[in-house]
Amino acid sequence: MSSTSKLLSSSKLFGGMIKQFTHESAVTKTPMRYSVFVPSGDVLGNGNGQMPVLYYLSGLTCTDENFTHKAGAAQHAAKHNIILVAPDTSPRRTEDPLVGEDDAYDFGSGAGFYINATESPWAEGGYRMDDYINQELPDIVAEALGSNVVDAERRSIFGHSMGGHGALTCALRNPGKYQSCSAFAPISNPTQCPWGKKAFEGYLGSTEAGAEYDATELAKTYAGPSMDILMDTGSADDFYTQGQLLPENFVKACNGNKLLQVESRMQEGYDHSYNFISTFVGDHIGFHAQHLNR
Amino acid sequence: MSSTSKLLSSSKLFGGMIKQFTHESAVTKTPMRYSVFVPSGDVLGNGNGQMPVLYYLSGLTCTDENFTHKAGAAQHAAKHNIILVAPDTSPRRTEDPLVGEDDAYDFGSGAGFYINATESPWAEGGYRMDDYINQELPDIVAEALGSNVVDAERRSIFGHSMGGHGALTCALRNPGKYQSCSAFAPISNPTQCPWGKKAFEGYLGSTEAGAEYDATELAKTYAGPSMDILMDTGSADDFYTQGQLLPENFVKACNGNKLLQVESRMQEGYDHSYNFISTFVGDHIGFHAQHLNR
Repeated sequence: MSSTSKLLSSSKLFGGMIKQFTHESAVTKTPMRYSVFVPSGDVLGNGNGQMPVLYYLSGLTCTDENFTHKAGAAQHAAKHNIILVAPDTSPRRTEDPLVGEDDAYDFGSGAGFYINATESPWAEGGYRMDDYINQELPDIVAEALGSNVVDAERRSIFGHSMGGHGALTCALRNPGKYQSCSAFAPISNPTQCPWGKKAFEGYLGSTEAGAEYDATELAKTYAGPSMDILMDTGSADDFYTQGQLLPENFVKACNGNKLLQVESRMQEGYDHSYNFISTFVGDHIGFHAQHLNR
Repeated sequence: MSSTSKLLSSSKLFGGMIKQFTHESAVTKTPMRYSVFVPSGDVLGNGNGQMPVLYYLSGLTCTDENFTHKAGAAQHAAKHNIILVAPDTSPRRTEDPLVGEDDAYDFGSGAGFYINATESPWAEGGYRMDDYINQELPDIVAEALGSNVVDAERRSIFGHSMGGHGALTCALRNPGKYQSCSAFAPISNPTQCPWGKKAFEGYLGSTEAGAEYDATELAKTYAGPSMDILMDTGSADDFYTQGQLLPENFVKACNGNKLLQVESRMQEGYDHSYNFISTFVGDHIGFHAQHLNR
């Protein structure tokens, strides 16, 4: 049983409120923190105060705060009357961590990869971020903000790097659940890159077991409603040049599936940082608004 | 003799570049770090690549990075073709700090108050941020970016809290040096508030000695060129309600001096954080652009 969210902070921003909550997660069996931006209200003028929700999944090492502090997204969400939700990237244990949980930046704490672990100790240790994002968090958010504010039927997802992988896989594994999907510099074919192989071997026991969480593999067999996907990658992104991202593989898979329309843009000179994200976050939120507010 | 700036990092942002530099300061006798946003170039289309410079002075506890990471200012500077410069708020000693230098958030490290200390050990210890900002830094920046990029004749200044105090006093103490001045939640009458009294007693030996750095006192006797000033303060700012900011005192002094035109806005529900700054930073940069780009 999930507990009610507890408000940690609240601050006015672009006419709305940025709020940080914590709750005891039934999925991870730990406290989980998340941040929400709630626009001021009914800009559509139709008397319906309910707003759609756009989830943002962060990359390796991040918490809920990297996006809310650095992306400059709230101005665009305020303009389009969209609620932004930024969860954490893994369970967090301040005391008594699992063996190895805090040893690496790309595995364990801060690196949940948005999958349900099957291997010990991660499975028992709450590394079930797929269930957390797709099953538990929407209800937690709706309860915290109220059903008069949250439109549970309109939902989209985006993310960065590991969270770009997460956004793509959440959308592809749950057909129809998200109206649209976008990603900044996503890990697009994780069974073929070092970050993905390490995560899948550790959490799932093998790289092969990660196929069910690999966006490129999922795109080949996706059979849900037609879906639009927007992706941006920077040409000066060291992780792109090192072969961690492989967006071309995902685009190729989408091109073979008429249900998926992907626009993948190479942004000249941009790197992997929030400087890149903040430059294009307005495009992404505008893209989601087209799907959420029609 | 100031040393040449050394580039620490560089990243593309809204078509321009955000760069972080360090240099050995002749004023503070320490290494000093600063960040610069340089727009992509000649949007005015007149073949002159030189751009004006807008200085941003941060508040207590901040470095050069708070503003560049959290304010969302670059998009507006890019639009108006203005260079942004964010210096640090004090000298920094990683080894062998002065006695008491790191003991409090509101004095010493991170709290230089943009004044030239006269008391020991602060005077000898490089707490001469007035000289640093107004005398040394402009030449350092021009050298780092090149005189073909920096227009040394067009310069404005803004800041937040302690840095709002700094922006007001830099502009008022140096008539004609800055084309315009603005502030977020400035400490407007520091000889009358706890933060200011502590700083002036420590750095200058008495609160009274701080009159020469008190914006409200300076506004009464300012005799330079006519100057426009924009100020925003949040009604939910705890430091405002605690009497640390006192913007009304500054407005009253300006109203008695026909050379100063101040627009002071009370923003309903906003607090002292970068959520407040990011909401209104577009207004401020637009205000400065009117004075810098005409």
